[in-house]
Amino acid sequence: MSELRRDPVDGRWVIIAAERRKRPVDFYTQEYKEESAENCPFCPGKENQTPPEIYAIREPNSMPNGPGWQLRVTPNKFPALRVEGDIHREGVGYFDKMSGIGAHEVIIETPDHAIRRSAMTPHQMENVFRAYRERIVDLRHDPRFKYVLVFKNYGEAAGASLAHPHAQLIALPILPKHILEEMAGAREYYRYKERCIFCDIIQQESDMKDRLVTQNDGFIAISPWAPIFPFEVWILPKHHDSCFEDCDPKQLTNLGAISLEVHKRLDQALRRPHYNSILHNSPFDEQYNNYYHWHIEIMPRLTRTAGFEYGSGFYINPVPPEEAAQFLREVEVT
Amino acid sequence: MSELRRDPVDGRWVIIAAERRKRPVDFYTQEYKEESAENCPFCPGKENQTPPEIYAIREPNSMPNGPGWQLRVTPNKFPALRVEGDIHREGVGYFDKMSGIGAHEVIIETPDHAIRRSAMTPHQMENVFRAYRERIVDLRHDPRFKYVLVFKNYGEAAGASLAHPHAQLIALPILPKHILEEMAGAREYYRYKERCIFCDIIQQESDMKDRLVTQNDGFIAISPWAPIFPFEVWILPKHHDSCFEDCDPKQLTNLGAISLEVHKRLDQALRRPHYNSILHNSPFDEQYNNYYHWHIEIMPRLTRTAGFEYGSGFYINPVPPEEAAQFLREVEVT
Repeated sequence: MSELRRDPVDGRWVIIAAERRKRPVDFYTQEYKEESAENCPFCPGKENQTPPEIYAIREPNSMPNGPGWQLRVTPNKFPALRVEGDIHREGVGYFDKMSGIGAHEVIIETPDHAIRRSAMTPHQMENVFRAYRERIVDLRHDPRFKYVLVFKNYGEAAGASLAHPHAQLIALPILPKHILEEMAGAREYYRYKERCIFCDIIQQESDMKDRLVTQNDGFIAISPWAPIFPFEVWILPKHHDSCFEDCDPKQLTNLGAISLEVHKRLDQALRRPHYNSILHNSPFDEQYNNYYHWHIEIMPRLTRTAGFEYGSGFYINPVPPEEAAQFLREVEVT
Repeated sequence: MSELRRDPVDGRWVIIAAERRKRPVDFYTQEYKEESAENCPFCPGKENQTPPEIYAIREPNSMPNGPGWQLRVTPNKFPALRVEGDIHREGVGYFDKMSGIGAHEVIIETPDHAIRRSAMTPHQMENVFRAYRERIVDLRHDPRFKYVLVFKNYGEAAGASLAHPHAQLIALPILPKHILEEMAGAREYYRYKERCIFCDIIQQESDMKDRLVTQNDGFIAISPWAPIFPFEVWILPKHHDSCFEDCDPKQLTNLGAISLEVHKRLDQALRRPHYNSILHNSPFDEQYNNYYHWHIEIMPRLTRTAGFEYGSGFYINPVPPEEAAQFLREVEVT
């Protein structure tokens, strides 16, 4: 029997379509294409093919924009938004527009063209989150920006156009709609209960365990109650923390470790799926609060969004999260 | 220079990314696969492979569930929601669920396996909308349902799993999130202006003409101000009408004619793109109102939604709608 489930934070309903139930093996058909490194602009030795680097983790004596790096951040060569200029709001008849101001950067996660996150060292994985943090801390000083969205598209099905491991960030002059909705839901819950809704979810998932994927000292990884995609995983800090970029350095080590394990489990269970990974963080003007809890959402892209999803804003998910979590828990990883 | 544009109805911002501008030819790479009719369960003679028909347009002496039909509606064989049962709401700790009750039907648009909407006769196209209407009128009598979402997925990139021309409908016990947002935006505008926002948009687009695609006696087709996808087209009745299923029979003829023309223009401009087409209609409990205006949204699926879109709820569109509309107006169709 199918079930309608409501996301406790943003209120979106998801149809858990048991009649259309699928097992991991049903998703293996997606072809994984290893792209050649030959023309890759993110590989070492091609540093002149990207705009000059903004941040890097490098060997002690190496020079900016040359080889000798472990991680580089550069502006996106084809940015969706431009960083130069002022923000103008303007009406066009009944319509509204705003100048396309923002920052659009690329985080090149490793010099190794073909490595997946699941094969990184814990140190490499931690470095990726260190770069997230450094860039957000820098961009939050710019009064034009209200939010920095950090995300990773891996594989064609997830919208990636380059194979070399990279994440992206877009600093925005307006708050994203999804973040507004999450903040509103979390605020409303706090007004009613005087507790953070994410803290309550963590407590409940630790007790119930049927949607628990893994945990370590600082973090818990779960299949959420109402996932929009099969095998979606959320990683949340165990203790209340509203602001990712000010988290403890020790937490970055824990985050690297649990992320590595989650990616290993997903890659083993689903044979290296294409995926999106998105950091959900508090907006700059309410960084420290009692109601919102930063976290990372990882969404394997195994199904396609179609007319029903675009028309309704609801999702149909053929894999109950309890089954997904069990599978991810039980899969063998090294 | 990129631009941020706000949808006047639901308030969602879209980045019109002029720096990443694309022309129609850039979208031609999508491969179009003609699937064989051999194993198609929707072809004539295979009527026993679908659940028994609910509605059909048939030759005078033909029998239900046999050949001799021009159009058939049947329950979906693998429904996302089940039609039998009562609606139960239930809490699971902090979470909420509801029984998966709803109707999920398939509208087989024509006996012809390989025909696209652009190659249909005006009469066939009109029949499709007649079937939409008949099914909604029937389902709105069921007090369990609040909304019927009618949509079409065409092609793999749009989430279709079968090639034979078909649309689908899902009757829902809750209002879809997107419809709630549209209704709220339209209601707020009406409170402020005492006019329907869609009527104002139609007036403005008729005057400005730069986003106008085509029009006939009853309808206007436009590229919307803040389209989430390149070459998105909306078809709206010219005069205020909140309730699709009670529209004048003459309007169904006009709707068939303009839809046919829009599909011809899209197919010619973009070489038969995969697309979603979605009917946006008033909910059953407020069918007749002054603020909401039913319409059809057609979204060619030329780009992929990625981490930015899922994280933000915003969209990046590399084709300004003024350019899309001009291209669609100027393309030659017969």
